Amino acid sequence: MSHLYQYQVRTSSKQEFVNIDEHIQDALSKSQVQNGLLVVYCPHTTAGITINENADPDVKTDLELGLNKTFPNDTEYVHMEGNSDGHMKSSVIGASETLIIEAGQPIFGTWQSVYFAEFDGPRARNVFIKIIEG
Amino acid sequence: MSHLYQYQVRTSSKQEFVNIDEHIQDALSKSQVQNGLLVVYCPHTTAGITINENADPDVKTDLELGLNKTFPNDTEYVHMEGNSDGHMKSSVIGASETLIIEAGQPIFGTWQSVYFAEFDGPRARNVFIKIIEG
Amino acid sequence: MSHLYQYQVRTSSKQEFVNIDEHIQDALSKSQVQNGLLVVYCPHTTAGITINENADPDVKTDLELGLNKTFPNDTEYVHMEGNSDGHMKSSVIGASETLIIEAGQPIFGTWQSVYFAEFDGPRARNVFIKIIEG
Repeated sequence: MSHLYQYQVRTSSKQEFVNIDEHIQDALSKSQVQNGLLVVYCPHTTAGITINENADPDVKTDLELGLNKTFPNDTEYVHMEGNSDGHMKSSVIGASETLIIEAGQPIFGTWQSVYFAEFDGPRARNVFIKIIEG
Repeated sequence: MSHLYQYQVRTSSKQEFVNIDEHIQDALSKSQVQNGLLVVYCPHTTAGITINENADPDVKTDLELGLNKTFPNDTEYVHMEGNSDGHMKSSVIGASETLIIEAGQPIFGTWQSVYFAEFDGPRARNVFIKIIEG
Repeated sequence: MSHLYQYQVRTSSKQEFVNIDEHIQDALSKSQVQNGLLVVYCPHTTAGITINENADPDVKTDLELGLNKTFPNDTEYVHMEGNSDGHMKSSVIGASETLIIEAGQPIFGTWQSVYFAEFDGPRARNVFIKIIEG
Protein backbone atom coordinates (compact mmCIF):
# COMPACT_ATOMS: atom_id res chain seq x y z
CA MET A 1 0.00 0.00 0.00
CA SER A 2 1.39 3.36 -1.08
CA HIS A 3 0.70 6.46 1.04
CA LEU A 4 0.56 9.00 -1.78
CA TYR A 5 -1.69 12.07 -1.80
CA GLN A 6 -2.24 14.90 -4.28
CA TYR A 7 -3.42 18.44 -3.44
CA GLN A 8 -4.16 21.56 -5.43
CA VAL A 9 -2.77 24.97 -4.57
CA ARG A 10 -4.15 28.12 -6.20
CA THR A 11 -1.76 31.06 -6.24
CA SER A 12 -2.88 34.66 -6.75
CA SER A 13 0.25 36.59 -7.73
CA LYS A 14 3.53 36.27 -9.63
CA GLN A 15 5.48 35.33 -6.49
CA GLU A 16 3.78 33.95 -3.40
CA PHE A 17 4.44 31.68 -0.43
CA VAL A 18 1.39 29.54 0.42
CA ASN A 19 1.35 27.70 3.76
CA ILE A 20 0.49 24.04 3.04
CA ASP A 21 0.63 22.60 6.56
CA GLU A 22 -3.05 21.65 6.33
CA HIS A 23 -2.30 19.28 3.42
CA ILE A 24 0.50 17.66 5.43
CA GLN A 25 -1.91 17.12 8.33
CA ASP A 26 -4.52 15.68 5.95
CA ALA A 27 -2.01 13.26 4.42
CA LEU A 28 -0.76 12.15 7.84
CA SER A 29 -4.30 11.64 9.07
CA LYS A 30 -5.27 9.54 6.02
CA SER A 31 -2.07 7.46 6.12
CA GLN A 32 -2.21 6.73 9.88
CA VAL A 33 1.58 6.36 9.71
CA GLN A 34 3.16 6.95 13.12
CA ASN A 35 6.87 6.97 12.30
CA GLY A 36 8.72 7.55 9.05
CA LEU A 37 9.54 10.14 6.41
CA LEU A 38 7.21 12.50 4.56
CA VAL A 39 8.22 14.05 1.22
CA VAL A 40 6.43 17.15 -0.11
CA TYR A 41 7.04 17.33 -3.88
CA CYS A 42 6.39 20.14 -6.37
CA PRO A 43 5.95 18.91 -9.99
CA HIS A 44 6.51 22.38 -11.51
CA THR A 45 9.74 24.02 -12.80
CA THR A 46 8.86 27.62 -11.85
CA ALA A 47 7.85 26.85 -8.25
CA GLY A 48 9.27 25.00 -5.25
CA ILE A 49 8.82 23.86 -1.65
CA THR A 50 10.49 25.53 1.32
CA ILE A 51 10.34 25.58 5.12
CA ASN A 52 10.35 28.92 6.94
CA GLU A 53 8.77 31.03 9.69
CA ASN A 54 4.99 31.08 10.17
CA ALA A 55 4.75 33.65 13.00
CA ASP A 56 5.48 37.11 11.59
CA PRO A 57 4.04 37.54 8.05
CA ASP A 58 6.82 40.08 7.40
CA VAL A 59 9.20 37.14 6.98
CA LYS A 60 7.27 36.02 3.86
CA THR A 61 7.39 39.60 2.57
CA ASP A 62 11.13 39.78 3.15
CA LEU A 63 11.75 36.42 1.46
CA GLU A 64 9.92 37.75 -1.61
CA LEU A 65 11.95 40.99 -1.52
CA GLY A 66 15.21 39.11 -1.09
CA LEU A 67 14.53 36.56 -3.84
CA ASN A 68 13.51 39.27 -6.32
CA LYS A 69 16.61 41.30 -5.54
CA THR A 70 18.98 38.31 -5.72
CA PHE A 71 17.44 36.70 -8.81
CA PRO A 72 16.04 39.54 -10.95
CA ASN A 73 14.34 38.87 -14.29
CA ASP A 74 17.32 40.08 -16.27
CA THR A 75 16.89 41.03 -19.90
CA GLU A 76 19.95 38.99 -20.88
CA TYR A 77 17.89 35.82 -20.37
CA VAL A 78 17.08 34.14 -23.70
CA HIS A 79 14.18 31.77 -22.83
CA MET A 80 11.20 33.14 -24.79
CA GLU A 81 8.60 32.67 -22.07
CA GLY A 82 10.24 35.42 -20.01
CA ASN A 83 10.10 33.45 -16.76
CA SER A 84 13.75 32.44 -16.40
CA ASP A 85 13.88 34.16 -13.02
CA GLY A 86 11.22 31.66 -11.90
CA HIS A 87 13.29 28.71 -13.17
CA MET A 88 16.32 30.05 -11.27
CA LYS A 89 14.38 30.41 -8.03
CA SER A 90 12.92 26.93 -8.52
CA SER A 91 16.37 25.30 -8.65
CA VAL A 92 17.69 27.38 -5.75
CA ILE A 93 14.70 26.78 -3.42
CA GLY A 94 14.31 23.17 -4.55
CA ALA A 95 11.48 20.90 -5.67
CA SER A 96 10.88 19.13 -2.36
CA GLU A 97 11.26 19.03 1.40
CA THR A 98 11.66 15.90 3.53
CA LEU A 99 10.10 15.83 7.01
CA ILE A 100 10.67 13.39 9.86
CA ILE A 101 7.44 11.85 11.21
CA GLU A 102 7.32 10.78 14.87
CA ALA A 103 4.18 9.76 16.80
CA GLY A 104 2.04 10.74 13.81
CA GLN A 105 3.35 14.32 13.57
CA PRO A 106 6.15 16.10 11.70
CA ILE A 107 9.13 17.18 13.77
CA PHE A 108 8.86 20.94 13.34
CA GLY A 109 10.65 23.69 15.19
CA THR A 110 8.42 26.16 17.04
CA TRP A 111 8.19 28.56 14.08
CA GLN A 112 8.44 26.16 11.12
CA SER A 113 5.80 25.66 8.45
CA VAL A 114 6.00 24.26 4.91
CA TYR A 115 5.35 26.64 2.02
CA PHE A 116 4.50 26.15 -1.63
CA ALA A 117 6.67 28.80 -3.31
CA GLU A 118 5.13 30.21 -6.49
CA PHE A 119 7.57 31.94 -8.87
CA ASP A 120 5.46 32.35 -12.04
CA GLY A 121 1.84 32.81 -10.94
CA PRO A 122 -0.96 33.22 -10.61
CA ARG A 123 -1.68 29.57 -11.46
CA ALA A 124 -3.44 26.39 -10.35
CA ARG A 125 -0.65 24.16 -9.05
CA ASN A 126 -0.26 20.61 -7.68
CA VAL A 127 1.58 19.23 -4.69
CA PHE A 128 2.27 15.55 -3.99
CA ILE A 129 2.84 14.16 -0.50
CA LYS A 130 4.35 10.71 -0.03
CA ILE A 131 4.77 9.03 3.36
CA ILE A 132 7.13 6.11 4.02
CA GLU A 133 6.84 4.07 7.22
CA GLY A 134 9.91 3.11 9.19
CA MET B 1 18.68 -6.35 -0.45
CA SER B 2 19.79 -2.74 -1.12
CA HIS B 3 18.69 -1.02 -4.35
CA LEU B 4 21.81 1.08 -4.86
CA TYR B 5 23.26 1.99 -8.26
CA GLN B 6 26.28 4.03 -9.38
CA TYR B 7 26.63 5.90 -12.67
CA GLN B 8 29.34 7.98 -14.31
CA VAL B 9 28.73 11.40 -15.81
CA ARG B 10 31.35 13.07 -18.03
CA THR B 11 31.09 16.84 -18.19
CA SER B 12 32.66 18.91 -20.97
CA SER B 13 32.81 22.47 -19.63
CA LYS B 14 33.29 24.50 -16.44
CA GLN B 15 29.55 24.75 -15.79
CA GLU B 16 27.07 22.34 -17.35
CA PHE B 17 23.68 20.77 -16.70
CA VAL B 18 23.57 17.11 -17.80
CA ASN B 19 20.19 15.39 -18.05
CA ILE B 20 20.43 12.10 -16.09
CA ASP B 21 16.87 10.79 -16.51
CA GLU B 22 18.24 7.73 -18.33
CA HIS B 23 20.14 6.66 -15.20
CA ILE B 24 16.99 7.03 -13.11
CA GLN B 25 15.10 4.83 -15.58
CA ASP B 26 17.92 2.28 -15.51
CA ALA B 27 17.93 2.15 -11.70
CA LEU B 28 14.13 1.82 -11.55
CA SER B 29 14.19 -0.94 -14.12
CA LYS B 30 16.90 -2.90 -12.27
CA SER B 31 15.25 -2.47 -8.87
CA GLN B 32 11.74 -3.44 -10.01
CA VAL B 33 10.45 -1.29 -7.15
CA GLN B 34 6.88 -0.13 -7.82
CA ASN B 35 6.30 2.36 -4.96
CA GLY B 36 8.72 4.26 -2.78
CA LEU B 37 11.34 6.99 -2.74
CA LEU B 38 14.34 7.46 -5.03
CA VAL B 39 17.33 9.58 -3.95
CA VAL B 40 19.81 10.91 -6.54
CA TYR B 41 23.04 11.78 -4.73
CA CYS B 42 26.10 13.73 -5.89
CA PRO B 43 29.33 12.83 -3.98
CA HIS B 44 31.19 15.97 -5.13
CA THR B 45 31.53 19.38 -3.45
CA THR B 46 31.69 21.49 -6.63
CA ALA B 47 28.63 19.94 -8.28
CA GLY B 48 25.01 19.18 -7.38
CA ILE B 49 21.67 17.69 -8.44
CA THR B 50 18.69 19.79 -9.54
CA ILE B 51 15.29 19.40 -11.20
CA ASN B 52 14.28 21.80 -13.96
CA GLU B 53 12.77 22.15 -17.43
CA ASN B 54 13.71 19.72 -20.23
CA ALA B 55 11.72 21.28 -23.10
CA ASP B 56 13.43 24.52 -24.17
CA PRO B 57 17.26 24.22 -24.01
CA ASP B 58 17.34 28.00 -23.42
CA VAL B 59 16.30 27.33 -19.81
CA LYS B 60 19.60 25.52 -19.17
CA THR B 61 21.46 28.42 -20.79
CA ASP B 62 19.61 30.91 -18.60
CA LEU B 63 20.27 28.89 -15.43
CA GLU B 64 23.98 29.01 -16.26
CA LEU B 65 23.83 32.77 -16.91
CA GLY B 66 21.88 33.40 -13.71
CA LEU B 67 24.11 31.26 -11.50
CA ASN B 68 27.28 32.88 -12.86
CA LYS B 69 25.85 36.35 -12.32
CA THR B 70 24.57 35.60 -8.80
CA PHE B 71 27.60 33.64 -7.61
CA PRO B 72 30.64 35.10 -9.43
CA ASN B 73 34.17 33.79 -8.87
CA ASP B 74 35.15 36.80 -6.77
CA THR B 75 38.77 37.58 -6.18
CA GLU B 76 38.16 38.06 -2.45
CA TYR B 77 37.81 34.27 -2.09
CA VAL B 78 40.79 32.76 -0.28
CA HIS B 79 40.58 29.02 -1.15
CA MET B 80 43.72 28.32 -3.21
CA GLU B 81 42.09 26.07 -5.81
CA GLY B 82 40.16 29.06 -7.20
CA ASN B 83 36.87 27.16 -7.41
CA SER B 84 35.01 28.70 -4.44
CA ASP B 85 32.21 29.79 -6.77
CA GLY B 86 31.66 26.10 -7.49
CA HIS B 87 31.52 25.28 -3.76
CA MET B 88 28.95 28.09 -3.29
CA LYS B 89 26.74 26.83 -6.12
CA SER B 90 27.05 23.26 -4.79
CA SER B 91 25.62 24.25 -1.39
CA VAL B 92 22.89 26.43 -2.96
CA ILE B 93 21.72 23.86 -5.54
CA GLY B 94 22.17 20.94 -3.14
CA ALA B 95 23.78 17.51 -3.19
CA SER B 96 20.65 15.47 -3.83
CA GLU B 97 17.06 15.30 -5.03
CA THR B 98 14.36 12.98 -3.70
CA LEU B 99 11.73 11.63 -6.12
CA ILE B 100 8.43 9.90 -5.37
CA ILE B 101 8.06 6.55 -7.17
CA GLU B 102 4.55 5.30 -8.05
CA ALA B 103 3.73 2.36 -10.33
CA GLY B 104 7.42 2.01 -11.18
CA GLN B 105 7.88 5.60 -12.40
CA PRO B 106 8.93 8.91 -10.84
CA ILE B 107 6.19 11.46 -10.31
CA PHE B 108 7.42 14.21 -12.64
CA GLY B 109 5.65 17.30 -13.85
CA THR B 110 5.26 17.57 -17.64
CA TRP B 111 8.49 19.51 -18.08
CA GLN B 112 10.63 18.11 -15.25
CA SER B 113 13.92 16.26 -15.63
CA VAL B 114 16.79 15.63 -13.23
CA TYR B 115 20.13 17.29 -13.97
CA PHE B 116 23.66 16.69 -12.78
CA ALA B 117 24.93 20.25 -12.27
CA GLU B 118 28.66 20.63 -12.90
CA PHE B 119 30.29 23.70 -11.34
CA ASP B 120 34.01 22.94 -11.76
CA GLY B 121 34.39 20.89 -14.91
CA PRO B 122 35.20 19.38 -17.22
CA ARG B 123 35.51 16.21 -15.12
CA ALA B 124 34.51 12.55 -14.80
CA ARG B 125 31.87 12.53 -12.06
CA ASN B 126 29.80 9.95 -10.17
CA VAL B 127 26.12 9.81 -9.27
CA PHE B 128 24.52 7.39 -6.81
CA ILE B 129 20.85 6.38 -6.99
CA LYS B 130 19.18 4.67 -4.04
CA ILE B 131 15.62 3.34 -4.09
CA ILE B 132 13.59 2.59 -0.95
CA GLU B 133 10.37 0.55 -1.18
CA GLY B 134 7.27 1.61 0.70
CA MET C 1 10.99 0.90 16.31
CA SER C 2 11.94 4.38 15.14
CA HIS C 3 15.61 5.28 14.63
CA LEU C 4 15.39 8.92 15.67
CA TYR C 5 18.14 10.84 17.45
CA GLN C 6 18.49 14.41 18.70
CA TYR C 7 21.73 16.37 19.12
CA GLN C 8 22.67 19.83 20.34
CA VAL C 9 24.93 22.17 18.42
CA ARG C 10 26.33 25.31 20.05
CA THR C 11 27.31 28.05 17.63
CA SER C 12 29.67 30.88 18.54
CA SER C 13 29.11 33.56 15.91
CA LYS C 14 26.43 35.16 13.71
CA GLN C 15 27.24 32.90 10.76
CA GLU C 16 29.09 29.61 11.18
CA PHE C 17 29.42 26.18 9.58
CA VAL C 18 29.73 23.42 12.21
CA ASN C 19 30.84 19.95 11.06
CA ILE C 20 28.31 17.43 12.46
CA ASP C 21 29.71 14.18 11.03
CA GLU C 22 30.27 12.89 14.58
CA HIS C 23 26.52 13.01 15.25
CA ILE C 24 25.83 11.09 12.05
CA GLN C 25 28.32 8.42 13.13
CA ASP C 26 26.73 8.26 16.58
CA ALA C 27 23.23 7.85 15.13
CA LEU C 28 24.40 5.15 12.71
CA SER C 29 26.18 3.30 15.48
CA LYS C 30 23.12 3.39 17.77
CA SER C 31 20.69 2.37 15.01
CA GLN C 32 22.81 -0.52 13.70
CA VAL C 33 21.10 0.04 10.34
CA GLN C 34 23.23 -1.30 7.48
CA ASN C 35 21.34 -0.03 4.41
CA GLY C 36 18.85 2.77 3.99
CA LEU C 37 18.41 6.53 4.08
CA LEU C 38 19.52 9.02 6.73
CA VAL C 39 17.88 12.45 7.04
CA VAL C 40 19.60 15.28 8.94
CA TYR C 41 16.94 17.86 9.87
CA CYS C 42 17.28 21.41 11.23
CA PRO C 43 14.21 22.62 13.19
CA HIS C 44 15.20 26.31 12.97
CA THR C 45 14.22 28.99 10.42
CA THR C 46 17.48 30.97 10.52
CA ALA C 47 19.79 27.98 10.07
CA GLY C 48 20.13 25.00 7.73
CA ILE C 49 22.01 21.82 6.80
CA THR C 50 24.48 21.59 3.92
CA ILE C 51 27.16 19.28 2.53
CA ASN C 52 30.50 20.71 1.48
CA GLU C 53 34.29 20.32 1.63
CA ASN C 54 36.03 19.30 4.86
CA ALA C 55 39.66 19.47 3.73
CA ASP C 56 40.66 23.13 3.34
CA PRO C 57 39.07 25.35 6.05
CA ASP C 58 39.24 28.24 3.54
CA VAL C 59 36.20 26.73 1.80
CA LYS C 60 34.07 27.40 4.90
CA THR C 61 35.44 30.96 5.02
CA ASP C 62 34.61 31.48 1.35
CA LEU C 63 31.08 30.08 1.76
CA GLU C 64 30.51 32.61 4.54
CA LEU C 65 31.90 35.44 2.39
CA GLY C 66 29.83 34.41 -0.60
CA LEU C 67 26.57 34.01 1.33
CA ASN C 68 27.01 37.39 3.04
CA LYS C 69 27.70 39.09 -0.28
CA THR C 70 24.81 37.38 -2.11
CA PHE C 71 22.25 37.73 0.68
CA PRO C 72 23.13 40.94 2.57
CA ASN C 73 21.07 42.13 5.53
CA ASP C 74 19.38 44.87 3.51
CA THR C 75 17.72 47.75 5.25
CA GLU C 76 14.63 47.42 3.07
CA TYR C 77 13.69 44.27 5.00
CA VAL C 78 10.66 44.87 7.23
CA HIS C 79 10.79 41.94 9.73
CA MET C 80 11.38 43.59 13.13
CA GLU C 81 13.89 41.07 14.45
CA GLY C 82 16.44 42.23 11.87
CA ASN C 83 17.44 38.69 10.84
CA SER C 84 15.70 38.44 7.47
CA ASP C 85 19.05 37.68 5.83
CA GLY C 86 19.17 34.56 8.03
CA HIS C 87 15.67 33.50 6.93
CA MET C 88 16.72 33.97 3.27
CA LYS C 89 19.86 31.86 3.70
CA SER C 90 17.82 29.21 5.54
CA SER C 91 15.45 28.74 2.59
CA VAL C 92 18.28 28.80 0.04
CA ILE C 93 20.55 26.32 1.87
CA GLY C 94 17.62 24.16 3.01
CA ALA C 95 16.42 22.57 6.23
CA SER C 96 17.74 19.06 5.63
CA GLU C 97 20.08 16.74 3.77
CA THR C 98 19.38 13.12 2.83
CA LEU C 99 22.26 10.63 2.84
CA ILE C 100 22.44 7.13 1.37
CA ILE C 101 23.54 4.48 3.90
CA GLU C 102 25.36 1.38 2.64
CA ALA C 103 27.14 -1.19 4.81
CA GLY C 104 26.52 0.95 7.86
CA GLN C 105 28.17 4.10 6.47
CA PRO C 106 27.04 7.17 4.52
CA ILE C 107 28.06 7.31 0.87
CA PHE C 108 30.28 10.39 0.96
CA GLY C 109 32.63 11.74 -1.65
CA THR C 110 36.29 12.02 -0.58
CA TRP C 111 35.91 15.61 0.61
CA GLN C 112 32.28 15.67 1.79
CA SER C 113 31.08 16.39 5.32
CA VAL C 114 27.72 17.53 6.68
CA TYR C 115 27.52 21.00 8.22
CA PHE C 116 25.03 22.71 10.50
CA ALA C 117 24.81 26.19 8.97
CA GLU C 118 24.11 28.93 11.52
CA PHE C 119 22.72 32.18 10.11
CA ASP C 120 21.60 34.02 13.26
CA GLY C 121 23.93 32.99 16.07
CA PRO C 122 25.43 32.55 18.47
CA ARG C 123 22.79 30.14 19.80
CA ALA C 124 22.14 26.68 21.22
CA ARG C 125 20.59 24.73 18.36
CA ASN C 126 19.10 21.27 17.78
CA VAL C 127 19.58 18.72 15.00
CA PHE C 128 17.44 15.64 14.41
CA ILE C 129 18.73 12.54 12.62
CA LYS C 130 16.29 9.91 11.35
CA ILE C 131 17.36 6.61 9.76
CA ILE C 132 15.09 4.46 7.59
CA GLU C 133 16.07 0.88 6.75
CA GLY C 134 15.66 -0.46 3.24
